[in-house]
Amino acid sequence: MLYNKENPHGGDIYGKTKIMLDFSANTNPLGTPKGVKEAIIATMDSIDRYPDPYCRKLREALAGHEGVPEDYLICGNGAAEVIYAYCAAVGAGAVVEAAPTFAEYSIAGTHFGMSMKRYELRAENEFAFDKGFLDFIAAENPQAVILCNPNNPTGKTIDKNLLREIIAYTKRKAIRVFIDECFLDMCDNVERKGDKKAAVMPAKKGSKLTADAVDLLYGNPHLFVLKAFTKSYGMAGVRLGYGMTSDFRFLSKMAETVQPWNVSTMAQAAGIAALKEKEFLERSKAIVRAERVWLSDSLKNLGYRVIGSEANYILFEAGNNLEERLRARGIAIRSCKNFPGLSGEWYRIAVRTHEENMKLIAAMSNM
Amino acid sequence: MLYNKENPHGGDIYGKTKIMLDFSANTNPLGTPKGVKEAIIATMDSIDRYPDPYCRKLREALAGHEGVPEDYLICGNGAAEVIYAYCAAVGAGAVVEAAPTFAEYSIAGTHFGMSMKRYELRAENEFAFDKGFLDFIAAENPQAVILCNPNNPTGKTIDKNLLREIIAYTKRKAIRVFIDECFLDMCDNVERKGDKKAAVMPAKKGSKLTADAVDLLYGNPHLFVLKAFTKSYGMAGVRLGYGMTSDFRFLSKMAETVQPWNVSTMAQAAGIAALKEKEFLERSKAIVRAERVWLSDSLKNLGYRVIGSEANYILFEAGNNLEERLRARGIAIRSCKNFPGLSGEWYRIAVRTHEENMKLIAAMSNM
Repeated sequence: MLYNKENPHGGDIYGKTKIMLDFSANTNPLGTPKGVKEAIIATMDSIDRYPDPYCRKLREALAGHEGVPEDYLICGNGAAEVIYAYCAAVGAGAVVEAAPTFAEYSIAGTHFGMSMKRYELRAENEFAFDKGFLDFIAAENPQAVILCNPNNPTGKTIDKNLLREIIAYTKRKAIRVFIDECFLDMCDNVERKGDKKAAVMPAKKGSKLTADAVDLLYGNPHLFVLKAFTKSYGMAGVRLGYGMTSDFRFLSKMAETVQPWNVSTMAQAAGIAALKEKEFLERSKAIVRAERVWLSDSLKNLGYRVIGSEANYILFEAGNNLEERLRARGIAIRSCKNFPGLSGEWYRIAVRTHEENMKLIAAMSNM
Repeated sequence: MLYNKENPHGGDIYGKTKIMLDFSANTNPLGTPKGVKEAIIATMDSIDRYPDPYCRKLREALAGHEGVPEDYLICGNGAAEVIYAYCAAVGAGAVVEAAPTFAEYSIAGTHFGMSMKRYELRAENEFAFDKGFLDFIAAENPQAVILCNPNNPTGKTIDKNLLREIIAYTKRKAIRVFIDECFLDMCDNVERKGDKKAAVMPAKKGSKLTADAVDLLYGNPHLFVLKAFTKSYGMAGVRLGYGMTSDFRFLSKMAETVQPWNVSTMAQAAGIAALKEKEFLERSKAIVRAERVWLSDSLKNLGYRVIGSEANYILFEAGNNLEERLRARGIAIRSCKNFPGLSGEWYRIAVRTHEENMKLIAAMSNM
């Protein structure tokens, strides 16, 4: 529901200007896997009935996929709904987040009475998370910390050791930590105990590592991890996300803020089918890995300042009105002017197929 | 999201006992129209993108269907989400509702700080709304009144003149009125100016009339009307509902309580397709009209006390544990024991196809 508000996000390709190429939303360049589409079509004879209000089969599949008990899991009408339910359940008080980061945390948080305390990531440091973030948490002593790993729009993951330190510190101080891992499946060098998901690449020797915080949920009721199907499985239009925590009372509180049948029959079936698409995810990641390099190099060749991304999107600084000029040519990119913490002319583009990426760079070259 | 809460509604056919026949949810006996299924399947190549956060095309179609301006309209992930957003936007304070009525108003309302004031409809009066309701509003002087027309679970519509009096009185006193018309499309004898919808039958001479409150939205910012696709078009699993009011500021407030992409790409397409299914709706109503009589008579023959319904469901009073005994035979009906205002053993059943209705009555006869 936006209506009289201005849409602060990318991906709105339904306006008056015809969009031929959309780089403004960070979805999977390969679209939706066939198995997911087939699973949705297979529900057509049961959509006259209410969906399962407990998402029983989906949560069972997710529990197996994530290696957590079923009752750690809460499902939402997109990850965005889980963010809203989380903020509603935490309620009024100080909350630390990074700047820049995904705008919806502070939009939802402010609505539910949170006072957002922003730790500014520095452009000269490539917007990397550093030890200062931990000092900032200690100084603010907030009720909660919201983290995005990899961060949006920078594409930077949080170093494994720093992430573990943040989680350990906040656990000691009984501060809630919300970690948005919606794009983590598209990143390399993610460490997980036991390698539960083929989708997560084993770390390369000597490279920077980040941790999948799901491993740390057990025994830490202050930790909450958010995941989505939107990006990894090309399901942004289906609306499906989920969160995990071992704090059952908090999950009940979140559940009370949302209507009972929030996840459609189609979304529940699509989620179960998506978890089987390991080969699709590997293929998507391979494309993203190669194309991220190609796009970054191409943007640098055009003279733009490019932030080294580890995700399926790239942040860069360019000249004036790039977004408007590309939109006039039917190409949507994400202007980052409404991200707190980004001064100057920053833009975010999704990493898409080589054909689409070439068209974008060609359009940029001829402006 | 329900999880650790007990499901207070019908339609949950996903538990351990195998349900062969579901009379517990009031959905369309004919299922989902083919045109709606086809419209959903046609979206499969665009579900990797975010849905339109403004539901532009759907709201345009709805505006035409309802005969209201587009900016009166707000769409939700099912009518239930619109109820939650309404209660969140109204906030804490006294709210009048009937008893019995749909349980979700008070579940959502209480969550958002409302104090529910219940006007008890009397069984000896067949749970009809009467003038006493208006006196009750005057005595309570609430911030809002929530009405269900036809009422759930009684199947009774509110008399046209009484409804108009309630709306006129609350308008004068600046009291908000929320009218849930989710089942109104399945009722006969509904009066509308201009007959915008072929789906609404013209009134029979001399019969009791109810009014579609949509006609009264213009010039009355206190009035809010809720509609759903769930029941009329067999789309409960798709999740789509909408509300209408001329109070734009209030709509903005409602929108802020909900995440931006709350209506899926599939639901938006399904809604547009459903509005073209006028013949399907007429056929459904004809079945409901005939089967409601057959089912009511059959229940009476079994010795049960049956409330005269005008909708696609029937409330009746029967012996002990009927719900459990039928569930053991694979048939779900709705026990009304958790409806405030219903003492004794009341049950609600949906009106379904003749074949299904015969099976239900046969099972009841042989117990």
